[in-house]
Amino acid sequence: MVKNFKIIIEYDGGAYHGWQRQKQHRTIQQEIETALFTMVGRAVVVQGSGRTDAGVHACGQAANFCCETDLTPEIFRKGLSSLLPEDIVIRDCQKVTESFHARYDAKSKVYCYRILNRMVPPAIGRQYAWFIRRKLDTAAMRSAAGHIIGRHDFKAFEGSGSPRSHTTRTVASAEVSENSDGLVIFNIEADGFLRFMVRNIVGTLVEVGLGKISADDFKKILDAKDRSRAGATAPAHGLFLMEVKY
Amino acid sequence: MVKNFKIIIEYDGGAYHGWQRQKQHRTIQQEIETALFTMVGRAVVVQGSGRTDAGVHACGQAANFCCETDLTPEIFRKGLSSLLPEDIVIRDCQKVTESFHARYDAKSKVYCYRILNRMVPPAIGRQYAWFIRRKLDTAAMRSAAGHIIGRHDFKAFEGSGSPRSHTTRTVASAEVSENSDGLVIFNIEADGFLRFMVRNIVGTLVEVGLGKISADDFKKILDAKDRSRAGATAPAHGLFLMEVKY
Repeated sequence: MVKNFKIIIEYDGGAYHGWQRQKQHRTIQQEIETALFTMVGRAVVVQGSGRTDAGVHACGQAANFCCETDLTPEIFRKGLSSLLPEDIVIRDCQKVTESFHARYDAKSKVYCYRILNRMVPPAIGRQYAWFIRRKLDTAAMRSAAGHIIGRHDFKAFEGSGSPRSHTTRTVASAEVSENSDGLVIFNIEADGFLRFMVRNIVGTLVEVGLGKISADDFKKILDAKDRSRAGATAPAHGLFLMEVKY
Repeated sequence: MVKNFKIIIEYDGGAYHGWQRQKQHRTIQQEIETALFTMVGRAVVVQGSGRTDAGVHACGQAANFCCETDLTPEIFRKGLSSLLPEDIVIRDCQKVTESFHARYDAKSKVYCYRILNRMVPPAIGRQYAWFIRRKLDTAAMRSAAGHIIGRHDFKAFEGSGSPRSHTTRTVASAEVSENSDGLVIFNIEADGFLRFMVRNIVGTLVEVGLGKISADDFKKILDAKDRSRAGATAPAHGLFLMEVKY
C-alpha cells in the first residue's frame, strides 16, 4: 500500500541553488530524492511546501513524499539524515493521510531575516546574516513593517518570474526586533509569499532604517504597487524559512 | 619612530591550523602577517596573546605588532580587514605604549564552549557547536564546574606537549548555562590555560552530564591530577576565545 510521509527539513542553503530540482545545479530537493532512491530503490518525488531560492536557509521547510514501503517514519528520518550531506538534516518524519499535500495544504509560512548591524563585519556566522555597517533606525523600520500586516496586493515587492495567479497575500504578523549584539531580526508570517517578497520587503525596510525613505514612503510604495520604487533585494544568506503551518 | 599597535581579532577557525605560524599549513597569525607585509612593505611579527588550536574560533583574540609607520590605527584596521580573507576580521586597532606585550601582559582570558544538545544534528551553525544527542544533566554539570573555580593544579586537564613551566592556574569563573533551543554554554575565565585545558574540562563535564561519572568524581579527577581518568578532548569547533583582559 502506498503511504504518505511528511518531513521537516533544516538546511544550510549556502552550497545549493535553492530547493527545486534543476538539471545543472545541486539543489535540496534533488539531494533528498537521491537519498530516498538509495533507501527504497526507485525514484520518489519529494513535494516541498514551496521553493526557496539559491542561498536561502531553512530551519523548518516541510515536504511530503508517497511511497510503497514497509519502512517506518523513524527509519526514514535516520536513514535519510545519514545519507544526506551534513548541511541538510531531516528534523522529523511522520506518516500522514493519503491526501496531505505539502504545497496545497500549507496554511501559512514563517520567515526570519537576520541583519547584523555593527561597525565591523562578522567572521563568525557571516554565512547567516546580512552585514550592514551604518546604524539602522529600527523604530522607523518597525513602524514601516506595521503597514504590511493584513491583506494587501504585494506587487511592489514581487520579483520577476513569479509563478502566481494573483499578487494579493495576507500577512498575519511582521515584526522587527533587535538584541544587544547588533542583530536585527525581521519575522514575518503570511498565507503565502511571492518570489523574492521577503527579501524585497527587507531591502525596502533597510532604506527606511537608513533614513533614505520614511515609513510613510514605505506605505506609499506598497500602495502604488510599483516595484521600481521599492528597495533592492536583500541578499539570500540572511533569509530563513522557519516554519510551515498546516 | 617605532609604534606599537594592539589589535582585536575575530576569526572562524574552521579553515585554519590554529593561530601560530607554521611552514606547511594556513594559520591566522600568518594571514595577518602577510596582510601587514602588503601594507607596510616589510616583515612584521604579530604577537598573539597565546595560541588557539586548529579549528578553534575567536571573537576577541588580542595581539600586538611593532612597526615604524605613519599609518593610523584606523587605517590598519580597515586595510588589514580588506586584505584578509572574510573569515578573519580586525575588530579594533589601537596605538599602545611601547612596552605592551599581548602575551606577557594578559591578565586573564575568557573562553566559551558551545554544545548543541537536542535530538537531531544541526545543519545551520553546525560549524559552531558540538552536537550531543543524549540529554545532558546540566545541573550536575554546573555542580561539577563549580569545583574548578579558584587556584588548582590542572594537570588532569592538560594536553600533551603543553609549553608551560607549571600546571597551576586560577579560575575566576566557570559557568554552565542553557537556553530553550538546546544550546548548552560553558563560560570560563582564568589567568591562563594549559593546552587543551578547556576542551578537556568540557569533555569531562559532558561525562558528568551523561551520568557516566558524578560531580564528586569530577572533583576527584581534578584532585588526583591524572589525565587518564578525565574525559575525552571536546572537539575544537565548539570553542571560542571570547576576550583577553589586560
